Amino acid sequence: MPETTVDPSALKYDDAGLIPAVLQDAASQEVLMLGWMNEATLRQTLEIGQAVYWSRSRQEVWHKGATSGDYVKVHDVRTDCDADVVLVRGELLGGGVCHTGARSCFVEADNETPRVVRAG
Amino acid sequence: MPETTVDPSALKYDDAGLIPAVLQDAASQEVLMLGWMNEATLRQTLEIGQAVYWSRSRQEVWHKGATSGDYVKVHDVRTDCDADVVLVRGELLGGGVCHTGARSCFVEADNETPRVVRAG
Repeated sequence: MPETTVDPSALKYDDAGLIPAVLQDAASQEVLMLGWMNEATLRQTLEIGQAVYWSRSRQEVWHKGATSGDYVKVHDVRTDCDADVVLVRGELLGGGVCHTGARSCFVEADNETPRVVRAG
Repeated sequence: MPETTVDPSALKYDDAGLIPAVLQDAASQEVLMLGWMNEATLRQTLEIGQAVYWSRSRQEVWHKGATSGDYVKVHDVRTDCDADVVLVRGELLGGGVCHTGARSCFVEADNETPRVVRAG
């Protein structure tokens, strides 16, 4: 398939050196989570073919699955017109991406119901 | 369908008062763009049922489509386990979401090829 290629160094990282990374299941197309990467963890992601994030809360490299076994196998990484977001498309090698145990961070762990934002 | 509801005031906005908003086509499931909302534009989005962002470059409210006609009709807005991201699911009322004229910000306007990130 024809494609445009973009080097990780050409992306726009924020003041903390981070870029938002949307994770989408390549098969179901479900949006699973949004994490953050810096240039180093993005390069590592591309090199090993598994999602590697920067944990903003722990301020450290977060190779997803290294502790839980829930690795994300990466099919490809795309960027947008402004080069300030990446879209990671891949598949779950474990049960789910969420720390709650849910398949997706956008649903509750116990019953998979979505968390809908609605003004009270 | 059962769901958990979250009030916009319960979300976590960043130091600039913003939250990343992933836009997904509710029919095709394609991820179309990532924009930013503050609490006010998120509430406006919910109220009028169309995507309203905060433009970081122009530092102003950006009712998507008001100039171009390419409005986004919003089906629902979801949030994640940390309540620091929103997932807007909706449909395009115009030709596309990208300022380049493309349907999605993740593809080139002229031939719809993806922009793939790859280390040189």
